[in-house]
Amino acid sequence: MGTVTGKVLPQPTRDEIRVETVLQALADPVRLRMVAELANSAEPIPCGHFDVEVGKSTVTHHVRTLREAGVIEVRQVGTARASTLRKDDLDARFPGLLTGVLSGVD
Amino acid sequence: MGTVTGKVLPQPTRDEIRVETVLQALADPVRLRMVAELANSAEPIPCGHFDVEVGKSTVTHHVRTLREAGVIEVRQVGTARASTLRKDDLDARFPGLLTGVLSGVD
Repeated sequence: MGTVTGKVLPQPTRDEIRVETVLQALADPVRLRMVAELANSAEPIPCGHFDVEVGKSTVTHHVRTLREAGVIEVRQVGTARASTLRKDDLDARFPGLLTGVLSGVD
Repeated sequence: MGTVTGKVLPQPTRDEIRVETVLQALADPVRLRMVAELANSAEPIPCGHFDVEVGKSTVTHHVRTLREAGVIEVRQVGTARASTLRKDDLDARFPGLLTGVLSGVD
């Protein structure tokens, strides 16, 4: 993981993460792809760098949905926003869920 | 597990179960409750016996959604339909997912 700086955007604490909300966040093919990309990335991914075939505003929407669900952490770095997967938090709250989900992504 | 008889209603084979569809099926609080109930039940649960505060036709809809996603198996027993969780199939396809999800249900 590279150096992570910048202000963390509002997000639920670990204990506030709810499984229904996580499932709703993951139950979208584009968001699922983004989560898989984050899981395979050693570095935070800027919003504009996700390998998905949707427009910028749609990515912004998906990033917010994932952040508000507690699936990702988003940091404001200057004018850019970079996302990381909250793997430790998800594994602590719902052991096995994330691994199981990612095993089903092509 | 009690004796399970009756005709199995159409459902995806284990290999046909897709993670996006499973997540969509689970991403509903009532369906999640039904799945948790099935996970805790030694016996198949008839449609009318789920402990959820929704009408019969809504339960029927949820049962179909779960069945078509591959989350549950539904058998027609006379005029009744009884559901069981496809735990083995889900565990084989997406190891950890179901356990992780259930750990988040109150």
